[in-house]
Amino acid sequence: MDRIMIYFDNSSTTRVDPEVADLVRAMMCETFGNPSSLHRLGVEAERRYQKAQRQMLSALGAKEGEVVFTSGGTEANNLAVFGTAAAKARRGNRVVTTAFEHSSVTGPVAELARRGMETVVVKPERDGTLDPEKLLAACNEDTILVSAQLVNNEVGTILPVEDLVRGIRKRSPNAAIHSDAVQAFCKLPYEVSRLGLDLMTVSAHKIHAPKGAGALYVAKGTKLRPLFFGGGQQKGLRPGTENMALIAGIGLAAERAHARLAENWDAVSKVRDRLAERLGAMEGVTVNSPKGALPYIFNISIPGYRSETMLHFLESKDIFVSSGSACSRGARSPVLTAMGLSDREIDSSIRISLSKYNTPEEADTFADAVAEGMKTLRKR
Amino acid sequence: MDRIMIYFDNSSTTRVDPEVADLVRAMMCETFGNPSSLHRLGVEAERRYQKAQRQMLSALGAKEGEVVFTSGGTEANNLAVFGTAAAKARRGNRVVTTAFEHSSVTGPVAELARRGMETVVVKPERDGTLDPEKLLAACNEDTILVSAQLVNNEVGTILPVEDLVRGIRKRSPNAAIHSDAVQAFCKLPYEVSRLGLDLMTVSAHKIHAPKGAGALYVAKGTKLRPLFFGGGQQKGLRPGTENMALIAGIGLAAERAHARLAENWDAVSKVRDRLAERLGAMEGVTVNSPKGALPYIFNISIPGYRSETMLHFLESKDIFVSSGSACSRGARSPVLTAMGLSDREIDSSIRISLSKYNTPEEADTFADAVAEGMKTLRKR
Repeated sequence: MDRIMIYFDNSSTTRVDPEVADLVRAMMCETFGNPSSLHRLGVEAERRYQKAQRQMLSALGAKEGEVVFTSGGTEANNLAVFGTAAAKARRGNRVVTTAFEHSSVTGPVAELARRGMETVVVKPERDGTLDPEKLLAACNEDTILVSAQLVNNEVGTILPVEDLVRGIRKRSPNAAIHSDAVQAFCKLPYEVSRLGLDLMTVSAHKIHAPKGAGALYVAKGTKLRPLFFGGGQQKGLRPGTENMALIAGIGLAAERAHARLAENWDAVSKVRDRLAERLGAMEGVTVNSPKGALPYIFNISIPGYRSETMLHFLESKDIFVSSGSACSRGARSPVLTAMGLSDREIDSSIRISLSKYNTPEEADTFADAVAEGMKTLRKR
Repeated sequence: MDRIMIYFDNSSTTRVDPEVADLVRAMMCETFGNPSSLHRLGVEAERRYQKAQRQMLSALGAKEGEVVFTSGGTEANNLAVFGTAAAKARRGNRVVTTAFEHSSVTGPVAELARRGMETVVVKPERDGTLDPEKLLAACNEDTILVSAQLVNNEVGTILPVEDLVRGIRKRSPNAAIHSDAVQAFCKLPYEVSRLGLDLMTVSAHKIHAPKGAGALYVAKGTKLRPLFFGGGQQKGLRPGTENMALIAGIGLAAERAHARLAENWDAVSKVRDRLAERLGAMEGVTVNSPKGALPYIFNISIPGYRSETMLHFLESKDIFVSSGSACSRGARSPVLTAMGLSDREIDSSIRISLSKYNTPEEADTFADAVAEGMKTLRKR
């Protein structure tokens, strides 16, 4: 790092680990072949591709052939939603999701509604959790897709996906079940085969790998139509010359993060606990993350202090956080809105999102800076 | 390079230039912010994004706001075809293309046919050229999309796109006109605004930038529906966190290649001319590339010698070429088939594709190796 800063915006994006960046560079300049080429340079690239695939399968707890690489979480979510809708058009007409999904799930679902599908969007509770019964009540025999995130991107809620899957299977035998696991991947311990999902989305740039790569887990036997048509790469499910450098990057980053999942969880939990302790004790600060949330995400509101104002005050101290998610830039947080928070709470919300590089001392510095910000900005 | 090799497979993919790789690395580890973030790290990333966009516009001869970054040529071609079909569904029902497009154009067009659209696929001539009159004859008032490549990917034909556009406009006033310029970008001199196209596809990894990035030129006022829905990035036309490191990479590579377009053309022409001279004089070798083809691509057949066999013989001498295009791995070349070549010619075809790094001496070595291969392999 060029100077000492506190980067608390890791759910927006992360710095790429140097080891991952080195591999990406080597893939660009050395192992640069096209894996479809029949000669040795192609074979070398293909071998590296297979390795990345194995690393992903191992990090996911998936079986051979169950990973499709994409250009990121957005493409993977779009592929899951549109690909299922196209593959199962004759099996039913209902899609069920939650109101606090990432926009790359709610967006495609809204598009399906415009195309005439029946879509049911289940609201979360005021405390940021999801009532499983409400989701299950929306699932009927006509349902072809249920999409419910593993971890919410703004408040960190962990959804009881394993239980949900069990309930959905009973009510909606024709449904594919998808989960956006972008914020959970290599952070929350799980094996995708145990969760019982058909489809699951992950992304590279939340785990210290580059932006521009992601993957969709596709359980064996899952019916899915591609979004793209072309050269037949990835069994036709996602044609296009493989994004080799970044695919190698996400493979290595996943292997590294998965191997240290428990240690990282413990380290990040200490930072989150310090934040909760310090900020929870401050008058005028309310916590939006539910109990039992992923420790990587901690969301607060400071009613009376607009998010952007506080964000820029903190930035002046080289502390970087988000107001809501980076993706809904400028717009009012759809997640906090769905939870039913007041405008004052929503407009003053701050998302602190952590990585293995953060420390409890940074949490103290942050809490001090927020307190100072509240004093300074009130004076104005 | 680790050892002396002759890389004649640059239309499959290229080695990334070290300067480009350095920038990609810096974007991953230093300017790593999410351009949607409101704080300084986001602003820095956004600024770098704007710079890449300006570099692309300048290399294309396009105006502000006319570039959409994608994950590569395949996505850009799919966006052009499906995005136009969705946007213009009410204006007509015909799509016109040629039979020797890349599979990422013919694939989506075939999918549109399955969905009930009328698609007309115009065959090229035996010499690898396209008869403009045949294409124009297929364009009627019901036509909503015409897609014709700027340069063919297997034999290097340069299509008279500017003339075609003029003719299409008269016959098909409702049509969007798209060209796949992946093999032409920063190689063939053109300004997209002069060509008069509505949509044009380019890719990073054919110009010494990494695989996993591309762009679609979208002329102002062109109606297009997105393939993805999500966070609203790129004006909603292509949402998803921007593939920042590779976007910076394609911008720099385009700037560099465009600045040296004429020099590279001359240098590559010398290599191609030497190949034509040497191989053209060899008994048993026929040239499949038409006169006036892009000098970067030179396609031959050696009837009696299967492509794969010759390819592996050449590989044993550290010379790397393709049989057909890398994308149609294993399958019989769709381009040579469309041209009407005999099976013997198709099954013995070799595509030599050049870059600025190749030399006339390499062409000599290559010709010698082919001659040796013909002797050696005949003996067996």
